[in-house]
Amino acid sequence: MRGAVLYGPGDVRFEERDDPKIIEPTDAILRLSATCVCGSDLWPYRGADTFPQPQPMGHEYCGVVEEVGREVTNVKPGQFVVGSFFASDNTCPICRAGYQSRCVDARLMGNEGAQAPYLRVPLADGTLVATPEMPPDDMVPGLLATSDVLGTGWFAADAANVRPGHTVAVVGDGAVGLLGVLSAKQMGAERIIMMSRHEARQKLALEFGATDIVTERGDEGVERIKEMTGGLGAHSVIEAVGTQESMMQSIRSARPGGHVGFVGVTHGVEIPGMELFFSGVHLHGGPAPVRRYLPHLIDLVLSESIDPGRVFDLTLPLDQVAEGYRAMDERRAIKTLLCP
Amino acid sequence: MRGAVLYGPGDVRFEERDDPKIIEPTDAILRLSATCVCGSDLWPYRGADTFPQPQPMGHEYCGVVEEVGREVTNVKPGQFVVGSFFASDNTCPICRAGYQSRCVDARLMGNEGAQAPYLRVPLADGTLVATPEMPPDDMVPGLLATSDVLGTGWFAADAANVRPGHTVAVVGDGAVGLLGVLSAKQMGAERIIMMSRHEARQKLALEFGATDIVTERGDEGVERIKEMTGGLGAHSVIEAVGTQESMMQSIRSARPGGHVGFVGVTHGVEIPGMELFFSGVHLHGGPAPVRRYLPHLIDLVLSESIDPGRVFDLTLPLDQVAEGYRAMDERRAIKTLLCP
Repeated sequence: MRGAVLYGPGDVRFEERDDPKIIEPTDAILRLSATCVCGSDLWPYRGADTFPQPQPMGHEYCGVVEEVGREVTNVKPGQFVVGSFFASDNTCPICRAGYQSRCVDARLMGNEGAQAPYLRVPLADGTLVATPEMPPDDMVPGLLATSDVLGTGWFAADAANVRPGHTVAVVGDGAVGLLGVLSAKQMGAERIIMMSRHEARQKLALEFGATDIVTERGDEGVERIKEMTGGLGAHSVIEAVGTQESMMQSIRSARPGGHVGFVGVTHGVEIPGMELFFSGVHLHGGPAPVRRYLPHLIDLVLSESIDPGRVFDLTLPLDQVAEGYRAMDERRAIKTLLCP
Repeated sequence: MRGAVLYGPGDVRFEERDDPKIIEPTDAILRLSATCVCGSDLWPYRGADTFPQPQPMGHEYCGVVEEVGREVTNVKPGQFVVGSFFASDNTCPICRAGYQSRCVDARLMGNEGAQAPYLRVPLADGTLVATPEMPPDDMVPGLLATSDVLGTGWFAADAANVRPGHTVAVVGDGAVGLLGVLSAKQMGAERIIMMSRHEARQKLALEFGATDIVTERGDEGVERIKEMTGGLGAHSVIEAVGTQESMMQSIRSARPGGHVGFVGVTHGVEIPGMELFFSGVHLHGGPAPVRRYLPHLIDLVLSESIDPGRVFDLTLPLDQVAEGYRAMDERRAIKTLLCP
C-alpha cells in the first residue's frame, strides 16, 4: 500500500509502505474510510519535533474491520469502527478511571501511520468502538472527528470543568479549539468567548456556539476577558495551542478557583510555580483519553445532535497528503480530510 | 503593646508596636488567646523573601472580640472567634465559589502582625467565625490550628481530591503535611504514605493516620511510591514544601489522572509543561481558602473528633518569639505556639 511518510521539515511523501498485518493476537486490521491531518502533525512537519528516521504519519482514523487476531472478541470483520490515537486495553486501573490515553499498556497510534488505506490497531478490544450499523457516507467526517479532534476538544472542556451557566474562554482557533467551543456548548456553557483573529474560524466558532469573539492576544487578551467577566476572569479556559504565551494567557484568563483544560501539545512551556500558586486555578490536561468519550460522541454524531465534521474545510485524495499538510501549515485550511 | 517584628534574616525582635485600632467600620479588634509561627514565616526569616522595611509578623490567630466597627453585625465583643490568614468579605462571587483567600477584597493578615497580644481584623463579618461558647483552654491550640495550618492541610487534601479508598502520598513533614495526613484520614483515605526522615514527625504522622512511612526522597522516593501502588502512583498527593524538588516529586508520585494539591508557598519553582502534559495529573493549590472550611473544622475540634493542636510541640510566652523561630528553623520544633 502507499501512505504518508515524513522525512524532514516540510517533506511529507506518499510512498510505498508494507501492508499492515496482524502481529499480536489482540490486533485488528482496518480498511480506512477516512483519515486526516492533525494540528499536532504540524509540530514535526515544522521541525519543532525531531525524529531519527522517516516517520509514517497519521493517528486519526475510522473504517471497516478487515481482519482480527484470534483473541479479539469485541469487534468483527465488516463492522464500522472508530478508535483513539492511543490504543488502550480499557481494563487496567488507569483505563477504568477514565485515562485510557495513559493505559499501562498504551500504544501511540502515530507509530502505525494512519494516513494510509489500511491500519493495524493493537489492543483492538479495548480501543475500537463499533457503530450499530454501517453509517452513511456523509457521517464519516463527523465520526472521524471523534477519533481525536472532537475527543480532544471535549476532554479540554471537561478538564476545564465546563458547567451550565459557566463563562468559557477558548485560546486557540484551530480545529481542537473550535470543537472545544462545540463541546462547551453541549455541556451547557452560558457564554463562550473564542479568541481568534481569523475570519473563517471566527465564523465557524459562532456557528458552533461561541457568543463572543476576542481578537486581542496575550496580556491584552487577558484584559478583555477580565473586562467581560466583571474583573474576575472566566470560570473555564480551554488551552488548545501549546505555547508559553497560550498557556500563560489561559492561566491568567481564568478566575481564582477556575479551571484551565490544556490540550495543546506543550512545546517549550515552563509554568512559573509562584504565579500558578497565587492564581488559584485548577490545571489539568494532556493527551485526551478519547476512548472514555467515544461511545457518547459517536451517539451524538449518529443522532445528528452535533456536526463536528464541519472542521474539515479541505478534502483531498490521500495521494495529495503533502498538499493537505501545506494548506494547514499556511492556515489556508483548518483541517484536511484525506480519502484513501 | 509589644509584638514580633522581622528586621532581616534570623532577626526577629519583640518590640513596641502601636496598639491596633478600628480603622474601617468593618474592622474588629481581637485580644488573642494564642498565636503561632507558620512554616511560611521561615521563608523571610531565612532570607528567601525580601521586604523593604521591618515587618510585623504572624497571621494565625484566635481570641476574644474586644471591639467592633459600626458596620460589623456577625460577631460581637466577648465572643471567641477564629479567622483565616486572609481577611475576606465572604460575599463576592469568588468567596461564594469557595475561594475566600482570593476574595476580590482580600487582605493579607500578615500585614497586621498576629504575633502580638491584640490584632485588627478587617472585613470582620466575612472573616471571623465565632464558637457557640467560650472554649476551654485546652481546646485553644486546636482552634488556633484551624486558622491556617489545619485549614491549609485540609485544603491540600481536598485539592488532591482525597476520597474514601484512595492512596495518598504526603510530601513534606512540617505541620501542614502532618495535618494533611489527619485531613486525608478524616476524608476516608485507605492508605496514607508520609514521606519523612524525621523520627518525631514520623511518629506524629502515624498517630494522625499515616499507614506507611517512606524515607527516600526525589526520584528514589517516587520509585518507592510506585512500588507501593502497583507501579501506578498515588491517587492523591499533598505537596507541602514549595521547592522544585518537592513539586516534581509530587507530580511524579501521582498516577495518570491523579491529583496533586500543592500548598507549600512555591519558591523558585518552574513546572516543565511537557512533563505536566504527559503526567495526566490534576494540579491545584495556592493559599488555602481556609474560611470555606472553618465552620466544619471548628466543629471537628469542639466535638473532639480531631486534635490538630498536637502539631504544637513547643509552647512559649510571646516575648520569647525569637526562640520560637529558631527552634522551627533548626527543626527542633514542628510548630511553636505563642501565648500573649
